[in-house]
Amino acid sequence: MSQPESESPKKKVSFRGRSNVPVANSNAEGEDAPEFEPFGLMPRGPPPLAEFLDIWDVNMLCKPNESNKKEHHTSLFSNPLLVVRRAQEFQIRITFNRAYDPSKDQFLLEFVIGASPQMSKGTYIPVFPDPGRRGLWRGRILDSIDNMVTVGITAAPDSIVGKFRTYVAVLTPYGIRRTRREPKRDVYILFNPWASDDPVFLKDEAERGEYVLEESGIVYHGEASDVSARPWNFGQFEYGVLDACLYVMDRAEMPITNRGDPIKVARKASAAINSKDDDGVLVGNWSGDYSYGVAPTSWTGSVEILITYAATKQPVAYAQCWVYAAVFNTFLRCLGIPARVVTNFYSAHDNDGNLKTDIIVDEEGKVDRVRTKDSIWNYHCWNECYMTRPDLPQGFGGWQAVDSTPQETSDGLYRCGPASVQAIKHGHICYPFDAPFIYAEVNSDVVFYKRDKSGNLEAARVNRSHVGRMVLTKAIGGDQPFELTNQYKFAEDTEEERTVSAKAEGYGMDRPKVNYPEPDVKVEVLAQEVSIGDDFQLDLEFKNHSGEHRTINAFVTGYVVYYTGVTSGEVKYETLKVTLDPWQTERVSVDVHSKDYMSKLVEQSNLHFMVTGRVEEGSQIVSAMRVITLHVPKLSIKVIGDPRVNEETLVSVEFTNPFQFSLDSVHLRMDGPGLMTPKYKHFSVIPPNGPLHWPESFTPRRAGPTKLMVTLDCLALRQVYDQVVVNVKP
Amino acid sequence: MSQPESESPKKKVSFRGRSNVPVANSNAEGEDAPEFEPFGLMPRGPPPLAEFLDIWDVNMLCKPNESNKKEHHTSLFSNPLLVVRRAQEFQIRITFNRAYDPSKDQFLLEFVIGASPQMSKGTYIPVFPDPGRRGLWRGRILDSIDNMVTVGITAAPDSIVGKFRTYVAVLTPYGIRRTRREPKRDVYILFNPWASDDPVFLKDEAERGEYVLEESGIVYHGEASDVSARPWNFGQFEYGVLDACLYVMDRAEMPITNRGDPIKVARKASAAINSKDDDGVLVGNWSGDYSYGVAPTSWTGSVEILITYAATKQPVAYAQCWVYAAVFNTFLRCLGIPARVVTNFYSAHDNDGNLKTDIIVDEEGKVDRVRTKDSIWNYHCWNECYMTRPDLPQGFGGWQAVDSTPQETSDGLYRCGPASVQAIKHGHICYPFDAPFIYAEVNSDVVFYKRDKSGNLEAARVNRSHVGRMVLTKAIGGDQPFELTNQYKFAEDTEEERTVSAKAEGYGMDRPKVNYPEPDVKVEVLAQEVSIGDDFQLDLEFKNHSGEHRTINAFVTGYVVYYTGVTSGEVKYETLKVTLDPWQTERVSVDVHSKDYMSKLVEQSNLHFMVTGRVEEGSQIVSAMRVITLHVPKLSIKVIGDPRVNEETLVSVEFTNPFQFSLDSVHLRMDGPGLMTPKYKHFSVIPPNGPLHWPESFTPRRAGPTKLMVTLDCLALRQVYDQVVVNVKP
Repeated sequence: MSQPESESPKKKVSFRGRSNVPVANSNAEGEDAPEFEPFGLMPRGPPPLAEFLDIWDVNMLCKPNESNKKEHHTSLFSNPLLVVRRAQEFQIRITFNRAYDPSKDQFLLEFVIGASPQMSKGTYIPVFPDPGRRGLWRGRILDSIDNMVTVGITAAPDSIVGKFRTYVAVLTPYGIRRTRREPKRDVYILFNPWASDDPVFLKDEAERGEYVLEESGIVYHGEASDVSARPWNFGQFEYGVLDACLYVMDRAEMPITNRGDPIKVARKASAAINSKDDDGVLVGNWSGDYSYGVAPTSWTGSVEILITYAATKQPVAYAQCWVYAAVFNTFLRCLGIPARVVTNFYSAHDNDGNLKTDIIVDEEGKVDRVRTKDSIWNYHCWNECYMTRPDLPQGFGGWQAVDSTPQETSDGLYRCGPASVQAIKHGHICYPFDAPFIYAEVNSDVVFYKRDKSGNLEAARVNRSHVGRMVLTKAIGGDQPFELTNQYKFAEDTEEERTVSAKAEGYGMDRPKVNYPEPDVKVEVLAQEVSIGDDFQLDLEFKNHSGEHRTINAFVTGYVVYYTGVTSGEVKYETLKVTLDPWQTERVSVDVHSKDYMSKLVEQSNLHFMVTGRVEEGSQIVSAMRVITLHVPKLSIKVIGDPRVNEETLVSVEFTNPFQFSLDSVHLRMDGPGLMTPKYKHFSVIPPNGPLHWPESFTPRRAGPTKLMVTLDCLALRQVYDQVVVNVKP
Repeated sequence: MSQPESESPKKKVSFRGRSNVPVANSNAEGEDAPEFEPFGLMPRGPPPLAEFLDIWDVNMLCKPNESNKKEHHTSLFSNPLLVVRRAQEFQIRITFNRAYDPSKDQFLLEFVIGASPQMSKGTYIPVFPDPGRRGLWRGRILDSIDNMVTVGITAAPDSIVGKFRTYVAVLTPYGIRRTRREPKRDVYILFNPWASDDPVFLKDEAERGEYVLEESGIVYHGEASDVSARPWNFGQFEYGVLDACLYVMDRAEMPITNRGDPIKVARKASAAINSKDDDGVLVGNWSGDYSYGVAPTSWTGSVEILITYAATKQPVAYAQCWVYAAVFNTFLRCLGIPARVVTNFYSAHDNDGNLKTDIIVDEEGKVDRVRTKDSIWNYHCWNECYMTRPDLPQGFGGWQAVDSTPQETSDGLYRCGPASVQAIKHGHICYPFDAPFIYAEVNSDVVFYKRDKSGNLEAARVNRSHVGRMVLTKAIGGDQPFELTNQYKFAEDTEEERTVSAKAEGYGMDRPKVNYPEPDVKVEVLAQEVSIGDDFQLDLEFKNHSGEHRTINAFVTGYVVYYTGVTSGEVKYETLKVTLDPWQTERVSVDVHSKDYMSKLVEQSNLHFMVTGRVEEGSQIVSAMRVITLHVPKLSIKVIGDPRVNEETLVSVEFTNPFQFSLDSVHLRMDGPGLMTPKYKHFSVIPPNGPLHWPESFTPRRAGPTKLMVTLDCLALRQVYDQVVVNVKP
């Protein structure tokens, strides 16, 4: 045991006595195979090897224009090595010292991954160029011209995904002669959504184009009736990203043998994308203080994050849900697992499969902000990835929800999924992994409790439709949203919805048992679009659904909230008395002034208004809630001229500070798949109403349509961004 | 946010913006409730409170001979506070300044746990002494004599388990007056296997006596045909153990709200009992070097371990599987979850739901020790706990397997279960949690691969019955083993077994597809009992099941192995040629000398013999394996005289070094439930053939039958122990 323990004490210290070899859990590690491996005893000195095949060259045929990368849909990878997908043939060309004679020469290719490779574990794979020979991967001779032989190799559909070392070995009667290890002969094997026997197979070419190959994306946020679309550069093909994704698994010490299973890869990554427990990629921070890192709203894409993580080997600061989801998406698409980012509006969170979010009102009907401790996230982002689920009964394959945002009250673990979306919709939440959490995120009820003087609480009203209002993802091939709500649940008040709800309750999901008659007076906070800094009127609509007079004593409270629904400063408090004739509808407006909220804004500028009240006739509780997302000013980007491959192109970013106060320490970031590595600019101040101008340039790496995105971020103003479509000419 | 962040930076730093209050995950934390809580405005100075009830005393009736502890089966707890179980009434006696008048006085009891208590989360529980009043816990007046009122309180059957603070509060028109917090009024609420509506309800009184109340246990180890029984003091009622168990959950930051769910408690604890990830209770070490801690074989029970963990707040060194299982068992029984330790003989491990253990033989049939990297544990211990499983379809409640020994190649997480034993038996491994791992531990196949010269492997023989040979636990009310094998699987070669196997394969369990015809020659290594230091003959039995002559070229290898099956030094290598007439059975003996193995022994003294060979006629591979556990010399304990409660009793421990060499640095430990806190003695040397004498004394704490156990441990000799039954007279 003469290991250099000081170098990696954590891993080496305790396997002795526990296992014959330490668990291979790093793609980066692995000893080289010997160049000569003798068979038993050799009587007299080194054998005369001259008569046997000698290997002059091994050509991995890995140029972007060669057939391997084209046919495996990997030519977008900015990676000089061979990148191919499993369950599909690729080619390697070997040049010998003389023509290959199948009748007397015997050679094989060997693919090796990680330390202590073993054939029975799929980490050492000999491939004979003989289709009749059984083996994990198939091999055959495609052609043999002069002393050049082209071999076709097909990795097994359950092959480990990662970076393999390649050797060519010649069998002689004395032993095996093999090529020396050359890093340029390493080959990446990826998941293959194009192969019908790969568990991540996806039939539709347009879907594969979006969910595997598309590098630019949209993350939806805001409010269900006023959705904003933030551009994101997933950048899964950018230089270094593939290696960074493999590093994510190495760092999480994921056993190599598990890396061919998309279920295990997705599950492991849901833990490894966040830094909790395992020093994963991203550190969460919702506090508003990002002094020691980058504000979550400032990122333009995943490339900078993943490259920094792999280079510094330290978690990157900071993330909130959409950053986690976007980086996770890059990871999945990069390895070849079809994936998309979804946004759930009004998302119950941190509630550990409990189906209630509690709001406590006092005897008058006024919200008790001190005792109300739960919050509903204005929106929450997670991912879906596409795969079969052989570990579950039939019918639960397809899209699987995974979430890498750490759930504070989850099972003590900061990972979630994959959970079958189909199982969630149908209430079959007894199947792994973590289905009750996702089910609760889209199905929780909001329960209003009335608290009496002695501290006793009584449920007074339940809102079953507020949570999980809408689930969106980016449409295939376009920037518009595509609604997935009906993938997660049946329509409210249908027979199916009630059946599913009963089924979930059968699995211990504790739905509140209160079923008060709906009040005959309804109130709604009307949706509206408001720009930050504006005075506006909040419109409330009261409807009397009864044939009698009704008098409502209502309380309107407005709070600045984080996107997590956590309240910060109060901006509005008003009491209203509304009297309604039978069947009457009445609109009431409440003035909100910019001076009331501007100094209190936090993060993403959301105002949360809640109306609660008591109907004098019969003491029914009425309630309504709405988040008003204050619109921030837009950036503008202009590309000057027609961008061409490898030619410098100028771009101009313009912005005007709309406020009467200066913006301090302003961070700008620019990014675009195939266009540039992420660029960054810092302005220490933009004066009141002052302009900002950032002239920049880039040199496109490849032709075709792509996008250029810019963000602006400072303490007083977050979520400012823009994107333009750029069509790069050859 | 003026939190003293320096004191606990990890927990406080990031909830701002993410949640209104940090998640309550510590039973030890929690602010005191105010002594006076006014209702709204009070016009003129403090109100005249004199006319309202004043509380003079609150008596928790927590003496061991009072009815609370007796009826709740908690009188064994060495704990001065009230310890009761949920879903069963307990009593509290309140003395007021005058007689209580239900027509005008209003009082309530309040039970509070953790920080930020909320009624809707079950962490703040008001109890009115009025059975008609709805509430989480029920209350009623049992009697009212003079100014003393006895209140009966029944905690909800899903109540949080832990230590609650108790207040008595009187309602006045001006506000609530409540008692000051007094630590002696704290009450522990535990799970209740005696209550039919508690999810841990266990019907049989004898089973409850064993699986909840029994403090001394047996952990089985050794080999299936030569089982050894190690005594263990679970000590779940010893002073400090209950608080230590609550600390285990606090340290693991388990949200308080989850602590009423036995599924979540068992799952969390399976992670928190080992130190991986979360600085849990025990550090694993299988290396044989225990210089910086206590050797796993040296412990006598769980008390010392749990008390040390709670006191030092550091993981305790060291554990192997039975230590993890035994401490986990203490935790479960202490909180009131029925539990037992089970031992699986020949346990596949570390294989992540893969159903194969690979052994590689060369072309001659000889085991290739360099390339064979898998190992089968001679035995492995885990736990079963008893509960309903509302999160699963019906039929999977009952015993659940949980395992706190860290699985090196598991899902990246060092926890396992609860998995329904019923589901494992029937192959329904699609249900949480971690059923495939346990299924594989009892059902894996041993696959012999033949490796040809070019490195290719071909499966040559499969042994389907070696793994999971026998599962044992201690019998109810006795020290003999009780076999559970048929709880985990159907008998080999039955129709049921084949159906289950097919079902598990349907869930992606990759059973090796080879189905070679059984060889017509069988070989067996016969079981035998050998004492350490003896020369012995290893008996092999070859049977020819054919009508033809057979010649077998066999290799016998013997290795010193750890109990994990990991091989250390070779002790025997012999080749045999056996010729058999048709239908003949022949015994062959191989000599093994003590000098061959004595200097090479590691840990628990196991020798692993493997016979593999090739039949000349037809090249079938035959194989057999057996572990020979070398018996170690016994200790002897003698109790002198008749022990009586609170009287000092003498005890004498005797041992003789049977070897020609001296035993150095010998550690002895003595322990016994109700008899003593664990005692420890160190001898620096026992000369060759020399005696050891340890006179000790103890003072029993309670009457009745119990056990006294002693262990001896040193580098050269492990698993030396003895126990005696002690009947303490009152």
